[in-house]
Amino acid sequence: MIEWVDKEKVFKDPVHDYIYVQDRLIWDLINTRAFQRLRRVKQLGTSFLTYHGAEHSRFTHSLGTYETMRKVLSHFDRNFGWPSDDRMRLLALCAALLHDIGHGPFSHTVESVFQFHHETWTQRILIEDPEVSRILMRVDEDFPQDVADVIAKKDKFPLVVKLISSQLDVDRMDYLLRDALNTGVTYGTFELERLIRVMRPEGNDVVVKKSGMKTVEQYILARYFMYSQVYLHPVTVGSDVLLRHVVSRVKKLWDRGDAVYLVDELKPFLSRKADEISVAEYLELDEGVMNYTLQRWTRAEDPILRDLSDRFVNRRLFGSVDTRELKEVERQTIREMFRANGLNPDYYLSFQTATTGGYHMYKQGIKLVEESGRLLDDISKYSGLVRSLQPESKFRIFCPKEVLRGEGKYKPIRGWLDALRD
Amino acid sequence: MIEWVDKEKVFKDPVHDYIYVQDRLIWDLINTRAFQRLRRVKQLGTSFLTYHGAEHSRFTHSLGTYETMRKVLSHFDRNFGWPSDDRMRLLALCAALLHDIGHGPFSHTVESVFQFHHETWTQRILIEDPEVSRILMRVDEDFPQDVADVIAKKDKFPLVVKLISSQLDVDRMDYLLRDALNTGVTYGTFELERLIRVMRPEGNDVVVKKSGMKTVEQYILARYFMYSQVYLHPVTVGSDVLLRHVVSRVKKLWDRGDAVYLVDELKPFLSRKADEISVAEYLELDEGVMNYTLQRWTRAEDPILRDLSDRFVNRRLFGSVDTRELKEVERQTIREMFRANGLNPDYYLSFQTATTGGYHMYKQGIKLVEESGRLLDDISKYSGLVRSLQPESKFRIFCPKEVLRGEGKYKPIRGWLDALRD
Amino acid sequence: MIEWVDKEKVFKDPVHDYIYVQDRLIWDLINTRAFQRLRRVKQLGTSFLTYHGAEHSRFTHSLGTYETMRKVLSHFDRNFGWPSDDRMRLLALCAALLHDIGHGPFSHTVESVFQFHHETWTQRILIEDPEVSRILMRVDEDFPQDVADVIAKKDKFPLVVKLISSQLDVDRMDYLLRDALNTGVTYGTFELERLIRVMRPEGNDVVVKKSGMKTVEQYILARYFMYSQVYLHPVTVGSDVLLRHVVSRVKKLWDRGDAVYLVDELKPFLSRKADEISVAEYLELDEGVMNYTLQRWTRAEDPILRDLSDRFVNRRLFGSVDTRELKEVERQTIREMFRANGLNPDYYLSFQTATTGGYHMYKQGIKLVEESGRLLDDISKYSGLVRSLQPESKFRIFCPKEVLRGEGKYKPIRGWLDALRD
Amino acid sequence: MIEWVDKEKVFKDPVHDYIYVQDRLIWDLINTRAFQRLRRVKQLGTSFLTYHGAEHSRFTHSLGTYETMRKVLSHFDRNFGWPSDDRMRLLALCAALLHDIGHGPFSHTVESVFQFHHETWTQRILIEDPEVSRILMRVDEDFPQDVADVIAKKDKFPLVVKLISSQLDVDRMDYLLRDALNTGVTYGTFELERLIRVMRPEGNDVVVKKSGMKTVEQYILARYFMYSQVYLHPVTVGSDVLLRHVVSRVKKLWDRGDAVYLVDELKPFLSRKADEISVAEYLELDEGVMNYTLQRWTRAEDPILRDLSDRFVNRRLFGSVDTRELKEVERQTIREMFRANGLNPDYYLSFQTATTGGYHMYKQGIKLVEESGRLLDDISKYSGLVRSLQPESKFRIFCPKEVLRGEGKYKPIRGWLDALRD
Repeated sequence: MIEWVDKEKVFKDPVHDYIYVQDRLIWDLINTRAFQRLRRVKQLGTSFLTYHGAEHSRFTHSLGTYETMRKVLSHFDRNFGWPSDDRMRLLALCAALLHDIGHGPFSHTVESVFQFHHETWTQRILIEDPEVSRILMRVDEDFPQDVADVIAKKDKFPLVVKLISSQLDVDRMDYLLRDALNTGVTYGTFELERLIRVMRPEGNDVVVKKSGMKTVEQYILARYFMYSQVYLHPVTVGSDVLLRHVVSRVKKLWDRGDAVYLVDELKPFLSRKADEISVAEYLELDEGVMNYTLQRWTRAEDPILRDLSDRFVNRRLFGSVDTRELKEVERQTIREMFRANGLNPDYYLSFQTATTGGYHMYKQGIKLVEESGRLLDDISKYSGLVRSLQPESKFRIFCPKEVLRGEGKYKPIRGWLDALRD
Repeated sequence: MIEWVDKEKVFKDPVHDYIYVQDRLIWDLINTRAFQRLRRVKQLGTSFLTYHGAEHSRFTHSLGTYETMRKVLSHFDRNFGWPSDDRMRLLALCAALLHDIGHGPFSHTVESVFQFHHETWTQRILIEDPEVSRILMRVDEDFPQDVADVIAKKDKFPLVVKLISSQLDVDRMDYLLRDALNTGVTYGTFELERLIRVMRPEGNDVVVKKSGMKTVEQYILARYFMYSQVYLHPVTVGSDVLLRHVVSRVKKLWDRGDAVYLVDELKPFLSRKADEISVAEYLELDEGVMNYTLQRWTRAEDPILRDLSDRFVNRRLFGSVDTRELKEVERQTIREMFRANGLNPDYYLSFQTATTGGYHMYKQGIKLVEESGRLLDDISKYSGLVRSLQPESKFRIFCPKEVLRGEGKYKPIRGWLDALRD
Repeated sequence: MIEWVDKEKVFKDPVHDYIYVQDRLIWDLINTRAFQRLRRVKQLGTSFLTYHGAEHSRFTHSLGTYETMRKVLSHFDRNFGWPSDDRMRLLALCAALLHDIGHGPFSHTVESVFQFHHETWTQRILIEDPEVSRILMRVDEDFPQDVADVIAKKDKFPLVVKLISSQLDVDRMDYLLRDALNTGVTYGTFELERLIRVMRPEGNDVVVKKSGMKTVEQYILARYFMYSQVYLHPVTVGSDVLLRHVVSRVKKLWDRGDAVYLVDELKPFLSRKADEISVAEYLELDEGVMNYTLQRWTRAEDPILRDLSDRFVNRRLFGSVDTRELKEVERQTIREMFRANGLNPDYYLSFQTATTGGYHMYKQGIKLVEESGRLLDDISKYSGLVRSLQPESKFRIFCPKEVLRGEGKYKPIRGWLDALRD
Repeated sequence: MIEWVDKEKVFKDPVHDYIYVQDRLIWDLINTRAFQRLRRVKQLGTSFLTYHGAEHSRFTHSLGTYETMRKVLSHFDRNFGWPSDDRMRLLALCAALLHDIGHGPFSHTVESVFQFHHETWTQRILIEDPEVSRILMRVDEDFPQDVADVIAKKDKFPLVVKLISSQLDVDRMDYLLRDALNTGVTYGTFELERLIRVMRPEGNDVVVKKSGMKTVEQYILARYFMYSQVYLHPVTVGSDVLLRHVVSRVKKLWDRGDAVYLVDELKPFLSRKADEISVAEYLELDEGVMNYTLQRWTRAEDPILRDLSDRFVNRRLFGSVDTRELKEVERQTIREMFRANGLNPDYYLSFQTATTGGYHMYKQGIKLVEESGRLLDDISKYSGLVRSLQPESKFRIFCPKEVLRGEGKYKPIRGWLDALRD
């Protein structure tokens, strides 16, 4: 079943030094249109507006996830004889490589307006994209569906699912290191090589040697720090809010039949539901489309769309203020104040609760195992540090900075906000 | 004249750790539309198709060039009392920050078809863009022109010109380190801090302490290696060729009145000469526009445009073969063979001579100076290594890979090419 | 009062890139015999037997501590105008540079047998070593005592004391980064530059901006990880035990008048109390002396000394087993079993409780401060992560590996130990 | 023949991240007394007096050389099926691990006085040390001699010799990276992984793919820069001169029967020739012995020995001045001036010519090979950069700094030296 590439292929990579490809299947998947499109989707969405280095794409992260899986499998094979068959190995590698293939531009933001989910698209692409599915079918007819099922976290291949999507998965291992490198922070750093060395397959689970507990803690904390310092940075959240408002405004204008500049590629997403959109149509959506259209909207007729787009494109971002969580009646009052001052609160105001993840056993926790092979309990039973990682919520109000500064007519709003400050 | 920002502002940077901004002038320039647009222009054009990590923008490099200049000025100020006035300091900082502001998407490639030069646009933007020029004019009325003159390498501020554009300039110092980091190679590494420490202002020149000669050699070699291993990588050159052919094809279609999809932003560049295009029009050109249009062209009616665009967007790049330099008559023969096989040689064939830079004294060489202050000759007089860096040329033929592999009807062409191989 | 060195001096450093010296006072202190002796004392004692890269000396760490202090002071001076006088600045720099000058070879181990404390020696050297004290007195007559008082954590200069020795001190900042680099682990990594940026002097305290809380957490965790993964690594603790037993054995032999090889430099420490030993005598003690003598003892007549020394020098280290904490009667039983099998338990057995530090408010905690300047409570009030860092104890039994493996006659002991295993 | 260790063993390493040991043979060799002794010999001799970070031992470098060989063999095995037998693999690994086992403290300096060569000792230890030779003989009776022959560059295993000792050997690959990391410079950086990837076995030679030529250049230049910036740094050479003079003085005193403190371990080297000294005696020589004795000599009766030792131990090093190469008569004049001023020129003056290596074909040059397998000529035929690396000589006079500064009675000497300055 394995078709080797003639010669080992390599990609030079800033995180792993080299990414090694030995299977023709992997090589051919990388060269599909659907996979190359990931070069045109940023890994961290709007984060580059906070950390200017965050300009890397989902393409580089997907290659890195594949490589991390390759390393894990090599360790498992060398030391525990798993996987015993080549199909399982390819399943794990393909799932790692393709796990993000359904991501669109600024996914998290755009999806919430268009109401679809990149996970669904990933699965559809694996099965419906003729180029990708044909390559996967070279393994066998069921293979595309099996890869899709792994990504859907179905039960059939629990160990592979665990490696792709759990508290200890290759996806996270790569993105923490890669996002840290590109943003220029050390928060995401951890001992990758050692982490892999203390992992072992155990029935349907991946467990960790007890002597490696601190290495797992370091990795769990890398995620904690990256969330608070990078992924949920208020400037980034504010950029997301702004972009979401832009897209909502467009949708509003379109829905009520107002003129709005739209390239053909965007129209399906405004007129049809996700399941009425074809994979081919979906794959045309990338940051080229979004960035170009955003640029155009900076000259839109509608003053709200024009202003919001201009703020986003030219980085006049919303600011934020931390407050206690507001009651609906309080929110309503603020909305009214905005409206009274000529700012439509649907577009110029947002209440956001940012919640960091914490560590959850029920979200595929991490079990420890003794040197002797005796299975122990979840790491949270042994590590006070891990237990301390409870989800944390922050409530913030986002709006234009001139309002926050209390310029001119906004002075009273500022007074109000000051009173709510956390 | 100096307006300090209220508090020292910093940008987290993967190369310099932090970029420090103390002047409100700099802060405001960074926040202009024209400067923010650099986020939408990749620093290395098509290099990401060879080194997937090369996705960083000219925005990050421009900040890094500014920071490197800031470090050089701090060393010069601390140890040699230069610059003595604040205007000169700001001139150097602004020129460093803005030196690439005129770059467009895939500049080197697109410029050659549209026949304009980013240097010219840089100068025009400084003077004609209302937002940028107004900020610069806060120093004084002549300031925008002076910054433009520095970028045009005019004589008025020779020391600043030297620092911005010479064999030993802050532009190169930043891009070598940044491009190396992002591509994941060590070729561009050198001792930045020490290099700065051995530099000193000397009249109108920047000279280097003789004891630092090896550090300068390391820096000169960093450039040598980056050129051969990254900037002139045949896969990258082949991508440039392909993109240039796409744009030429579009121009051809437009010139002869054929239908071709064109967004408004591109039309001026096809219908008018550079000096008839306004700065505002120019600033609308970014990679959003280019990437979106390229995507559209993959569905063009014209088969050549459609095919070439598809190759570029989906990375079915041209391959290359190294040959001896061909005579015109030989080139003509190959062109004919292509045509005979149904490949228009204007679009499917390219003869390229890649020339690495070498070291030139007359291109603002680097003079040494003794500890005692005695000026010595150019470094090339003392360093055999530097002297060995003569420009090197490589002749290569670029065309589709199926031709190179001699598939089907292309077998005879392949035979011909093999005979020419270097 | 300040005497500048003619030209800025620099040391190339693997952690800080460059260490900058501008004051002649600092330069002259570095060149004293007492300070140069730190080159012959390893920073991490016996850790090199676990992590082979841990071969760096207290000399390099002392320079690094000085440099970190220099950076903190530069930030404090630039942004908060502290310290206002040059004497205070020099006091902080000298205390940072000299804080470890009293360390001897394998201090923690050797001190416990010889019963003295390196802190005491540090203070005595500052005042009694003619070369060091004469240089310090160039500031003024009280200066040596003031530096000594800072190291003794006396009240007079609370802010400087805080910077040298607290939960947030320059000593720890340098050693975490340096020990991590040399051992090759990432556990000690944190954002030094940002940590310094969020620190500010506040009356007699150093406080941290609340927005920098996560950066402080990262730094506190760096210590947590380094303790568990490096400093308290059981192989290192076992090496310490072994070395301590060697020295105890020598003391025993000496005390009872048995022949034992001793170089002159060691004799005072066996025959006199610490306060009867002169600073000049103390400064002769370094790792040259210890290593040479250990080598000699591998050929000692006394079989116990010979065997233990050989184990240490040639790395046949003690192994360990984790057990629950044992009662005295259980310990006694094990001691007897060792004795019954021909192993003197005073030298071949050790019960050790390793306790990691945790975070203590009362050990100079870290207060937060709002952007507005409003002082908040200790970080532990806000950070669940910091609160989770309680001191942790591990109980371990150390003895020769052949015993642990249950070789030959040691089989019954092994059975006993297995029953106690944690 | 292969005895695997029960579980893959690893060493955490600052250069290679992990060093992997799978063979029990290697594991047992690492644990020999002779190999552990390398922990007590610094890799860079007196360089730590110039670059304070250069405190790493030959032990760490030996492990790193082994690991680099392991990587090369893995690549050769995966891609070219070499070595075909396990004995050859072990031969290469053992030779790499043990290539420096004969090094003594400050070898290059001490050897020149005692007139022996570490290469000879390496070979003798492999065969004569009972512990080492017994382990090696587990392979077969001839194995110790074969390893010794590889180190002696005998013809029998040319490919292994090439990998251990040539222009492209694993020894150099490790030390460049390791010395660079520890000194904190980037001069020794090169693309290790890629360098290995472009190497291939070709008959009795190791050749390099032509497409990897620039990577080889980078590696050759890493050596060039490390020699000029680190290994031949005048402060280091001056330290070597000083140490050599100390040892010569001791030898002189001993030879003429004067009292001089000497530990037993040193006596054989003063009274007997190298071939009359046993391996056991030799292995007692380490930096513990040297450092301790040097310390003692700072209190020697002989004023010259006392003064020189004190200068070395407490870093009052000799300074140097670059001059043109002096004729014997000129040297004689200077010697006389020293003598006239009370400085014995045998101990207070040294004329040194430092020669950097250059690149030599006849010293096991590096041949290129085409993708097709066609062997090409030596790299120097294709690379102007490599050709430019001619050996360079610098002539320098070393003596106490007070003489160079022309203090007091030394003023005339200084005048003379100034006249000779290069």
